[in-house]
Amino acid sequence: MSTGFFEGLSKVTYKGADGDGDLSFRHYNPDEVVMGKRMEDHLRFAVAYWHSFAWEGGDPFGGQTFERPWHPQDDMGRAKMKADVAFEMFEILGQPYYCWHDADIRPEQGSYAENLSTLNEITDYMGEKQEATGTKLLWGTANMFSHRRWMSGASTNPDPDVFAYAAATVKGCMDATHKLSGENYVLWGGREGYETLLNTDLNQELDHMGRFLNMVVDYKHKIGFKGTILVEPKPQEPSKHQYDYDAATCIGFLRKYGLENEVKLNLEQGHAILAGHSFEHELAVAGAEGMLGSIDMNRNDYQSGWDTDQFPNNVPEVALAYYQVLKAGGFTTGGTNFDAKLRRQSLDPVDLIAGHVGGMDVCARGLKAAAAMLEDGGMEDALKDRYAGWETPEAQAMLNSDLETISNRVLSDNLNPEPRSGRQERLENYINKFV
Amino acid sequence: MSTGFFEGLSKVTYKGADGDGDLSFRHYNPDEVVMGKRMEDHLRFAVAYWHSFAWEGGDPFGGQTFERPWHPQDDMGRAKMKADVAFEMFEILGQPYYCWHDADIRPEQGSYAENLSTLNEITDYMGEKQEATGTKLLWGTANMFSHRRWMSGASTNPDPDVFAYAAATVKGCMDATHKLSGENYVLWGGREGYETLLNTDLNQELDHMGRFLNMVVDYKHKIGFKGTILVEPKPQEPSKHQYDYDAATCIGFLRKYGLENEVKLNLEQGHAILAGHSFEHELAVAGAEGMLGSIDMNRNDYQSGWDTDQFPNNVPEVALAYYQVLKAGGFTTGGTNFDAKLRRQSLDPVDLIAGHVGGMDVCARGLKAAAAMLEDGGMEDALKDRYAGWETPEAQAMLNSDLETISNRVLSDNLNPEPRSGRQERLENYINKFV
Amino acid sequence: MSTGFFEGLSKVTYKGADGDGDLSFRHYNPDEVVMGKRMEDHLRFAVAYWHSFAWEGGDPFGGQTFERPWHPQDDMGRAKMKADVAFEMFEILGQPYYCWHDADIRPEQGSYAENLSTLNEITDYMGEKQEATGTKLLWGTANMFSHRRWMSGASTNPDPDVFAYAAATVKGCMDATHKLSGENYVLWGGREGYETLLNTDLNQELDHMGRFLNMVVDYKHKIGFKGTILVEPKPQEPSKHQYDYDAATCIGFLRKYGLENEVKLNLEQGHAILAGHSFEHELAVAGAEGMLGSIDMNRNDYQSGWDTDQFPNNVPEVALAYYQVLKAGGFTTGGTNFDAKLRRQSLDPVDLIAGHVGGMDVCARGLKAAAAMLEDGGMEDALKDRYAGWETPEAQAMLNSDLETISNRVLSDNLNPEPRSGRQERLENYINKFV
Amino acid sequence: MSTGFFEGLSKVTYKGADGDGDLSFRHYNPDEVVMGKRMEDHLRFAVAYWHSFAWEGGDPFGGQTFERPWHPQDDMGRAKMKADVAFEMFEILGQPYYCWHDADIRPEQGSYAENLSTLNEITDYMGEKQEATGTKLLWGTANMFSHRRWMSGASTNPDPDVFAYAAATVKGCMDATHKLSGENYVLWGGREGYETLLNTDLNQELDHMGRFLNMVVDYKHKIGFKGTILVEPKPQEPSKHQYDYDAATCIGFLRKYGLENEVKLNLEQGHAILAGHSFEHELAVAGAEGMLGSIDMNRNDYQSGWDTDQFPNNVPEVALAYYQVLKAGGFTTGGTNFDAKLRRQSLDPVDLIAGHVGGMDVCARGLKAAAAMLEDGGMEDALKDRYAGWETPEAQAMLNSDLETISNRVLSDNLNPEPRSGRQERLENYINKFV
Ligand SMILES: [Co+2]
Ligand SMILES: [Co+2]
Ligand SMILES: [Co+2]
Ligand SMILES: [Co+2]
Ligand SMILES: [Co+2]
Ligand SMILES: [Co+2]
Ligand SMILES: [Co+2]
Ligand SMILES: [Co+2]
Repeated sequence: MSTGFFEGLSKVTYKGADGDGDLSFRHYNPDEVVMGKRMEDHLRFAVAYWHSFAWEGGDPFGGQTFERPWHPQDDMGRAKMKADVAFEMFEILGQPYYCWHDADIRPEQGSYAENLSTLNEITDYMGEKQEATGTKLLWGTANMFSHRRWMSGASTNPDPDVFAYAAATVKGCMDATHKLSGENYVLWGGREGYETLLNTDLNQELDHMGRFLNMVVDYKHKIGFKGTILVEPKPQEPSKHQYDYDAATCIGFLRKYGLENEVKLNLEQGHAILAGHSFEHELAVAGAEGMLGSIDMNRNDYQSGWDTDQFPNNVPEVALAYYQVLKAGGFTTGGTNFDAKLRRQSLDPVDLIAGHVGGMDVCARGLKAAAAMLEDGGMEDALKDRYAGWETPEAQAMLNSDLETISNRVLSDNLNPEPRSGRQERLENYINKFV
Repeated sequence: MSTGFFEGLSKVTYKGADGDGDLSFRHYNPDEVVMGKRMEDHLRFAVAYWHSFAWEGGDPFGGQTFERPWHPQDDMGRAKMKADVAFEMFEILGQPYYCWHDADIRPEQGSYAENLSTLNEITDYMGEKQEATGTKLLWGTANMFSHRRWMSGASTNPDPDVFAYAAATVKGCMDATHKLSGENYVLWGGREGYETLLNTDLNQELDHMGRFLNMVVDYKHKIGFKGTILVEPKPQEPSKHQYDYDAATCIGFLRKYGLENEVKLNLEQGHAILAGHSFEHELAVAGAEGMLGSIDMNRNDYQSGWDTDQFPNNVPEVALAYYQVLKAGGFTTGGTNFDAKLRRQSLDPVDLIAGHVGGMDVCARGLKAAAAMLEDGGMEDALKDRYAGWETPEAQAMLNSDLETISNRVLSDNLNPEPRSGRQERLENYINKFV
Repeated sequence: MSTGFFEGLSKVTYKGADGDGDLSFRHYNPDEVVMGKRMEDHLRFAVAYWHSFAWEGGDPFGGQTFERPWHPQDDMGRAKMKADVAFEMFEILGQPYYCWHDADIRPEQGSYAENLSTLNEITDYMGEKQEATGTKLLWGTANMFSHRRWMSGASTNPDPDVFAYAAATVKGCMDATHKLSGENYVLWGGREGYETLLNTDLNQELDHMGRFLNMVVDYKHKIGFKGTILVEPKPQEPSKHQYDYDAATCIGFLRKYGLENEVKLNLEQGHAILAGHSFEHELAVAGAEGMLGSIDMNRNDYQSGWDTDQFPNNVPEVALAYYQVLKAGGFTTGGTNFDAKLRRQSLDPVDLIAGHVGGMDVCARGLKAAAAMLEDGGMEDALKDRYAGWETPEAQAMLNSDLETISNRVLSDNLNPEPRSGRQERLENYINKFV
Repeated sequence: MSTGFFEGLSKVTYKGADGDGDLSFRHYNPDEVVMGKRMEDHLRFAVAYWHSFAWEGGDPFGGQTFERPWHPQDDMGRAKMKADVAFEMFEILGQPYYCWHDADIRPEQGSYAENLSTLNEITDYMGEKQEATGTKLLWGTANMFSHRRWMSGASTNPDPDVFAYAAATVKGCMDATHKLSGENYVLWGGREGYETLLNTDLNQELDHMGRFLNMVVDYKHKIGFKGTILVEPKPQEPSKHQYDYDAATCIGFLRKYGLENEVKLNLEQGHAILAGHSFEHELAVAGAEGMLGSIDMNRNDYQSGWDTDQFPNNVPEVALAYYQVLKAGGFTTGGTNFDAKLRRQSLDPVDLIAGHVGGMDVCARGLKAAAAMLEDGGMEDALKDRYAGWETPEAQAMLNSDLETISNRVLSDNLNPEPRSGRQERLENYINKFV
């Protein structure tokens, strides 16, 4: 009993070179084994409810372009129709996971109690669908940025009642995520930041945010939720400044508030770019601290100063990202979520399928290239060679000495180190053998 | 026995509205009392040797434009002539402090021992000049980025011998700073970062940088240096990525390596901008952590993606910066350094004076405006009013409770908070009454 | 019979230093004479209907924050209430002009004929209000970017029916503008550009846009509209690329399609910044070609990569803008429009008044500073001095000669020109004497 | 009689999958026929003397890292050694062309006559080498930005003597280019622009630049040079604003000064990015006007706000560039120049070879992918389909009508166009089948 929304579109399968990359895969072959693990288990793809089903195609200068039968999204009947369509898409794509914000899946009815009740009702409904289809929940999250009550922040709001509302909202969403066996719970602080420092007590707001996140961690333990708590960095937009600016800022924040062993990062390529970083940089920073939790694999246009949330399409870039993921040991509870939206001119149901298929294929190519590089070992060997000097006992002893001791040795040995080539172009050429 | 370089230019004095802003001050009146302190003691101006005396006017597409009698800077005779001219400028400007990198003041002779010996000789010479003129040293620092030996980093170099050379170099510079009664010692890691992640072990490099900074702090205590150790954030340029990216990143780094009570920040307006932040943001972040050490008051062009290091010229911006400085309690060992260079077409000695005079006047106006706002109290009152809800015992109790308790209260009270105006435009108007 | 929306707020008057800058002017004194002209006649302020009355406070991550009695804007009753409130604000502010898009003032009813009919009805209504209050129309324009029919462009749409719809829409808006004695007609091509070159025939689209603008000019002459046709540059956002990228691009386009004597530019500070230019650059480029028509005096945040459309607040910047306007001869049909929106947290009617009052005061200060600089003449003298060499007959003869003749002279005279200081810092200091 | 600089490195050959991409090609097979033409004749590779042989590895914060036997570059002996090494590299790489600035190949001796004489001597020397090796000159150009005489511009200098010096310099370089059978002559105006509008008469400077370029074109015809005159856009860096900002700005400039049929563009990927454009955008703009002359195929880092001039390494991007080149009919006199420099840590001669080999291979892959897409026709078919409506006689008639006629038809037909999907994701997927 299909909704008919995807009429004519059937399950997407792997066809290798015969695939068209729109409605059949050319590269994503779930059962293919890469470095000893099935591709599906490496990539752990998830579809985000938000962009694909809730967003109506608006941008700052224009309104709705997508006309879906579940619009307007203001009653439970249409919420269920939306869920029906979403799970139909999951079956077409065959990806193992999906993700939601509360506001994606239930209508906004203006009161906490009503919103909680519809959230519970719709997550029960979706739980049945998970059961029926085998699609699992990668993470749930609370949308604490769209409704006007959040305009000045959620946990960082100057009004303590909003903090309270936020606490209750997260509790409800964590409960629902737990009920649906979600593997992570995410917080993105789109309004945790400021429009102007002039009206902002940055220090107090950060303390409140730190306290709030500690409550979240405590509640996780209380209810026995075994998933990972993730925060998602983004530097700005819509806010002038967002406290979870980038990986390094988030990690500093977590350490300050004693959360470095409790919380990990959900890193998005587009947000890395907005913060002035490459995606692989953010992944490497998180990886170095053991805090690489999960990824949102949607790109930003480098030349558009806002979050474009496009499906990934550049294989060499994606390969470098998975190279960092694999070096960090791969995903445990995390996965590859497409927090990606169609361009607002891509009106057709087939565009929705094709966008995801293209993204999945690009990720599969990237993963395979990254794995091949690691198995070849050329890049790791170059690294080992470059830092070989530090392997000596003398070098290690120096690290444990002091400025004066070292200075004396520099003088006595008349040390005058000669620079060695960094070989950047050769390493870039090396990568191009794999992508 | 003047060098004659500034022939015809005499001591710059305060003339109020009669000043021309080039060779006499219109606003900077050292003895004028602002908020109970002399303006000179608030601002603590310093001139940077680097841009004003060592830089020859080159940019990536062109060479030397300034033709100074102390060029080329490769022997001690010219190093002393440069010092003579520099101290003549300090007397003309009357600012209380100056700053140096080792490479600004001594010739580069290619061996550590020779460089150390000329450093010691020239700093003795400058010590006499300090004595004679009363000009003091705000900070010294080591240039560990210009010579090719540093091309792959100093403390983060893949070659342990370069780490050693860096350690010895910093020791020498700390000794010289201590000898000259410098009030701070600064580290700027222009090559501590990477050109490409492909050849970089980010984790190991950060650990080495953390260990190095701990050695610096230990040595400070060992020699009894009472000044402050400062690190200066900058996100990139010339490197692709610099580890001391911005204030938040540096603070996270300091906390990770146990240095949060030992090291403060030297914040530069231009570097804030390159990192995507307003200067007041960086100052507020450092201020909130008690780590606002000193400032480099040279601006960047917002639309040039490299460090333009221009003299400040926008009073409203500068006022917001000093507002944060005053809120953080003002400078202790730190000050207002002009790490600023003339445009390379500004060839004349008078340009050098006028650039500094203009910058000092802009800072004086900014400081006075900031002080007036604080004394008026309008902005602080607005802040207090906005966060007033948090003053109640109920709000404080909530902060110490948990998600479930709060959630129950939201339900039982049927909480539905109404947003209140953030009043941003009114606060911006308020500021315009003072600048 | 007031709507009561601005209850308690009365006409804003000039109070000089006693003004609070929110509800009374400190600097804008309409009748004060500056360089021989009343301030009001220099500045020719206009309020934009769009941001102040039609925008509901949404951003890409959140919906409506402003709750106005005329929302939702879908019937003629509320359209009239909106007009009533708007004209009440015009009376409070006392600015001489206002501006509209068709979509701001009439409900969108989905059919061209109905939209035309309501446009005619509401513009009749507004005409009566203009009559009654003396407020005049600076310009009208058609919103050809919000409704989904425009998603792929208006005159550059791949579908000729959309081109037709656009032509009809502009005709209707030009007729209404003419009826209301508007002094200009503006075109902003927010969707004239592309999301991806992959689906775009750039050459054909530009030809259609050129042809369309020629039709607009022809129609202007046909109906005897004496106002100026203006195009408004913007580089991107929401589109990936907008054809009217910046002043130079627009001027090249106008020249290519034979419109350089028929069309001028409406320049917006925020759009200049998005294009990587200072506002004074865009004004100077347009001024040099005699194409500086009118300005939208709303700033962008330099560090937010989207159009923030904020009220101006930085006097030194605004002074440089009016310096260019005055050098270009001042406005004729154009004026100073605030295409500015409140921050979405600025919920209160008083914020709307205060935002405009602050902006008007900043412009008044900027204008007075620019006039004082021109009257002082210091900057123009410096310019004259710098280019003096070109005043000689020899220099003019050289311009009319050829490479070979010049080369011979260089050789025979052994020419070796010496650079002269560009004096940038001194000129910046000069400006700071006036702002 | 080799210089020994590239000792141990022999001619790079095509080895297909067996190539290592550093010292043998994996993709660049000069004789392979693509769309009916040899790959070498499509790509027309050129090596730029500047970055590879003249640049010493300096950046704004550091000096020379490369230590070459021809440094310092201040006498004719070393100039000839540099030429010997350069032509040895050309033989190793086997690319058909090279390019130079005058300042790359002769020492700077401070007087026009001496510089001209050494230019003539070295170009005679290089002419013999061209003869001997078969390497040809793609273009010559004058460096009018490095020496301090150019600090305030060349043809736009406030000093007419500098204009004269520039005219003589270009004459000398055009003569030398003509002598060496160069196929183009390039002008890049790195100092034609401004540091500050405060000291700049933009209008006069543009007129001088327009007059200068007309003299260049006249001289070309006078001496019978059959090559193409090219200008190279760049928006800024080192200048605050460069007049040849981007393709659209240059084209507008050429049209204003009557040069649109005489001058074409040399487009550089890195400069496109600095201007906020994709490279394919700049190519499409130039292609649409028939002004796509030649390309500098060196990329910029999207996140570094200065010109990084790196070798290309991203095949999907390069494929889109060649797609535009092929659509524009391919190169005639132009070619693919690597205006690229090694990273300053890439010290070894082998890095120089490997950088070029990698770049050539990436271009070869890009060209083949672009050709395959054109031969497949999928993207062109989608375009034709999207714009099909414009093929009808009715649509063409409408273009030749007027607003009123069209408006009447919209009303009478009750036109209400329905949007159609732009299919962006599907087109992106399409491309990924080829790259
Ligand atoms: Co995003
Ligand atoms: Co995300
Ligand atoms: Co700096
Ligand atoms: Co600094
Ligand atoms: Co705007
Ligand atoms: Co506007
Ligand atoms: Co370049
Ligand atoms: Co180039």
